[in-house]
Amino acid sequence: MLTLILAESALETVPERLWTHRAIQRYTKLRRKPPQFILLDRSYHHAAMRRLEQNEKRGRPDIVHFALLEALGSPLNKEGLLQVYVHTIGDNVIRVEPTTRLPRNYNRFVSLIEQLFEYEKIPPQPTEKALLTIKRQTLPQLIREIKPSYVLAFSRIGKPQTLEEAVSKLTGENRPVVIVGGFPHGHFSETTVRLANDVVSIDSEMLETWTVTSRIMYEFERAVSLPKKRLNQ
Amino acid sequence: MLTLILAESALETVPERLWTHRAIQRYTKLRRKPPQFILLDRSYHHAAMRRLEQNEKRGRPDIVHFALLEALGSPLNKEGLLQVYVHTIGDNVIRVEPTTRLPRNYNRFVSLIEQLFEYEKIPPQPTEKALLTIKRQTLPQLIREIKPSYVLAFSRIGKPQTLEEAVSKLTGENRPVVIVGGFPHGHFSETTVRLANDVVSIDSEMLETWTVTSRIMYEFERAVSLPKKRLNQ
Repeated sequence: MLTLILAESALETVPERLWTHRAIQRYTKLRRKPPQFILLDRSYHHAAMRRLEQNEKRGRPDIVHFALLEALGSPLNKEGLLQVYVHTIGDNVIRVEPTTRLPRNYNRFVSLIEQLFEYEKIPPQPTEKALLTIKRQTLPQLIREIKPSYVLAFSRIGKPQTLEEAVSKLTGENRPVVIVGGFPHGHFSETTVRLANDVVSIDSEMLETWTVTSRIMYEFERAVSLPKKRLNQ
Repeated sequence: MLTLILAESALETVPERLWTHRAIQRYTKLRRKPPQFILLDRSYHHAAMRRLEQNEKRGRPDIVHFALLEALGSPLNKEGLLQVYVHTIGDNVIRVEPTTRLPRNYNRFVSLIEQLFEYEKIPPQPTEKALLTIKRQTLPQLIREIKPSYVLAFSRIGKPQTLEEAVSKLTGENRPVVIVGGFPHGHFSETTVRLANDVVSIDSEMLETWTVTSRIMYEFERAVSLPKKRLNQ
């Protein structure tokens, strides 16, 4: 069983200090929703985002979207061997049920996550089993809850190592956790780096979150001979 | 050098026989464009699409979007070792320059491809170097143009084989081509199957186009020791 955490992910609702910005007001009118229930998205809020701290790491829901599609669609997940969490830059943690089928369409995904921020649970009906839940939680708190035996983080400025070598250390572990950054630019915070037993760099250039995620899934599957097992079923 | 073809891809403008459908008329009004320059998209045209033949294979621009992001963002492409073509279900072929940086945002990608269908070249200005071009071409015509030494197609109903085994046959080839279906359901047409030297199935369940694409990139990189080479740079 592998746990994947997308960390410091560029997923948040429009911060209060931008609510009065003209571009945001125009956008909220178009979307017919108040800004506290609208996702910050650089594609539409670029000008307004200049006001924000660390803005280069924020407002990219597409990164979480693609990375989750890669994780949830992997044979590893289909075998029930994966648990996924999304930690956001604003210290929320989304727990994703392995059976969740996310919308492939970006706009529908955005609406779904906006609903999640509003109701803290998807589907919102209390009688229905939660596929996505969100709660206030820091990454150290999440790690304490998971109690991993080994934490491996992927970062461009980590120790150079092939993915194959890096993943080979995971398979002997009882409760391995991998951390991939869910943001477009910049690096992990010191807090995140301190949680990792190892931080590795698998390429000489920055790779995108969804690419790293997809490769980890596949390499972990190879390491536990899943491709052969599934073909021989 | 590897050539990737996304084949029979679910990417086309709204077919003429749907132009009079009320849902399409409402949508074209919203988009402020005539339907011949709007992409067919199941997320918005589901009801209208019932009229179309093979509709289960059509209207999914997101598949090409994600798969291209995985291909173009791979170290293999960054090394100049990849050429990508998108063959569409309507027999158009898009040639993608390896240096193309596609929009990550889905709506911007859709607008870009709509512009490509309209002007047949991106950027449209004749003085600027083409990043994307589109022309009328069937898959057999494209294959005759590429003159591959070996064609490997991936299909759920192919011969079961691990990706590692399948890719190992590519690296000794002078001009290998891989074909991945760019559609959500169903199988390759007979015409496509006949072009392949081998058709393999790498998992017991259907895998999504972007997942298969990402894994082929990575496995090919491994087969030519690219991860180590790049880390030792």
